[in-house]
Amino acid sequence: MNEFELIRRHFTRAAPDAVLGVGDDAAILRPAPGCDLHVSVDMLVEGRHFFADVDPEALGHKTLAVNLSDMAAMGATPRWAVLALALPQLDAGWAEAFARGFFALAAEHGVSVVGGDTTRGPLTLAVTIFGETPRGQALRRDAARPGDDIWVSGELGLAAAALRQRLGTLDMVLPDACLQKLERPQPRVALGRALLPLVRAALDVSDGFAGDLSHILSRSACAAEVWLERLPTHAALAAHRDRLWSCIAAGGDDYELCFTADPAQAAAIQAAAAAVGVAVSKVGRIVAGSGLRLLDAAGNEVQLESLGYDHFAQA
Amino acid sequence: MNEFELIRRHFTRAAPDAVLGVGDDAAILRPAPGCDLHVSVDMLVEGRHFFADVDPEALGHKTLAVNLSDMAAMGATPRWAVLALALPQLDAGWAEAFARGFFALAAEHGVSVVGGDTTRGPLTLAVTIFGETPRGQALRRDAARPGDDIWVSGELGLAAAALRQRLGTLDMVLPDACLQKLERPQPRVALGRALLPLVRAALDVSDGFAGDLSHILSRSACAAEVWLERLPTHAALAAHRDRLWSCIAAGGDDYELCFTADPAQAAAIQAAAAAVGVAVSKVGRIVAGSGLRLLDAAGNEVQLESLGYDHFAQA
Repeated sequence: MNEFELIRRHFTRAAPDAVLGVGDDAAILRPAPGCDLHVSVDMLVEGRHFFADVDPEALGHKTLAVNLSDMAAMGATPRWAVLALALPQLDAGWAEAFARGFFALAAEHGVSVVGGDTTRGPLTLAVTIFGETPRGQALRRDAARPGDDIWVSGELGLAAAALRQRLGTLDMVLPDACLQKLERPQPRVALGRALLPLVRAALDVSDGFAGDLSHILSRSACAAEVWLERLPTHAALAAHRDRLWSCIAAGGDDYELCFTADPAQAAAIQAAAAAVGVAVSKVGRIVAGSGLRLLDAAGNEVQLESLGYDHFAQA
Repeated sequence: MNEFELIRRHFTRAAPDAVLGVGDDAAILRPAPGCDLHVSVDMLVEGRHFFADVDPEALGHKTLAVNLSDMAAMGATPRWAVLALALPQLDAGWAEAFARGFFALAAEHGVSVVGGDTTRGPLTLAVTIFGETPRGQALRRDAARPGDDIWVSGELGLAAAALRQRLGTLDMVLPDACLQKLERPQPRVALGRALLPLVRAALDVSDGFAGDLSHILSRSACAAEVWLERLPTHAALAAHRDRLWSCIAAGGDDYELCFTADPAQAAAIQAAAAAVGVAVSKVGRIVAGSGLRLLDAAGNEVQLESLGYDHFAQA
């Protein structure tokens, strides 16, 4: 047995929900009858998605969390995952800590790891995740309609502020919640499931609120008005909104849900969110047309660029 | 639209077999009723699995082929795939050629690409593939029984010989078939499906015949005797068997199927293989016990190391 076998061992756990888990040419799954199967993949690369010195346990958590967030955005119940990883060296301690973070979050969400691949290479992590919804009931990006309210969960901009502080482009004392959000995001899986019967379109906010909402608009062929002052953020950041608009409106790494719903559902949405312990905020509305209009407190349109957003930093 | 969007466009094709393909937080699939769903992931890294100067069209082919080979090994019909790729720079020509190779093979096998992720990073490719078999009928590694014949498809050692020639460790004129096998392996999908009702255990030969067969033995808790002289290879290599045993018996990158079956099925197996145009060879038998015994023409055991196999080169 070589060291790669030892590392693989850290990633081989029982998969009681699978017909066949790790160890064959493929895993065998039996999706629940009457359900649709949801599949999503995310790849994380050192130096691009995380720092080389990141705590491996936190990285294990985040690697799965960003995928769980995609399941949350569909309203899907996550069930299985496969993990492919390239590792630059054979570091059993690193692998054990990474696996600890990954599998702790997997257990919390009832996800079985049913397969994977391990190779030597620049540190790269690719998770493919599988979830289920009742047939035909997923929260898609193309279902928004004019008249819908636009909602967002939790608080925006915390992770982006922590990242900028780390990069030296933001000089400000930040609450611990910011680094926590950057390193250990909590995917809104329970919220997504709770919203399934109540909302129309949804996605997760991972690349910045404004850009992500624009995906709903283009796929649903409609426009939106968003009231900037209503975008939820941490109180410590709200006090410095004017410096932090680009973090709040377009920062990325939020892993919150943005969704649209018939205004008649507002009370039910508030109740469902409260039941799973997540705050939700109504931040705008879907209108006919195309494009996203960001409005200030006086109702005047504000350009994203004037908030400090740099298109060319997002490639 | 940035250049990454342009590159993504090369990888976004219609997915008629999916409820929802590329463009949402997740794809939505409806596996066929009464079928088991098979899932496998493989990650390919530049400098480890392929050379930096590889023809991108051939790389696109091979990236999917190695995954199709896992489906073939289960006897599964491949249906969908997701592709995550990290690219070091924004080279639209490279992406187009890679996509051409990838999608040509996908079309040949009726596979729809339903999702993916694109990021900047050291060139790394991760495909997760999905296939189906009738429920409970997969070809698993743990199903071999003492008394079974051991079979292998096609020819072994060609890709390994081509690789060694390229690395400068084999000085020999090779037939074109060797480089073809290394760069454009043909996954044995039709053979796997045809064998489904006829064989017990199966896997694909990707890391070298002897090591891969050993996975069947350990998972099936039995032993094997293999007649080295019967291992099929190209006539041009067979003439130099004594120099090439490590390629033939343990070389890797063959993407052939190794399978075990009741001897009573031998004629049916030959007929099924002939019907899909693939040669199959009976190369040994499963016996009680543990471990793999390689036998020479006189029936004497040969150690793998004495055939030139280097364990430490396989990490």
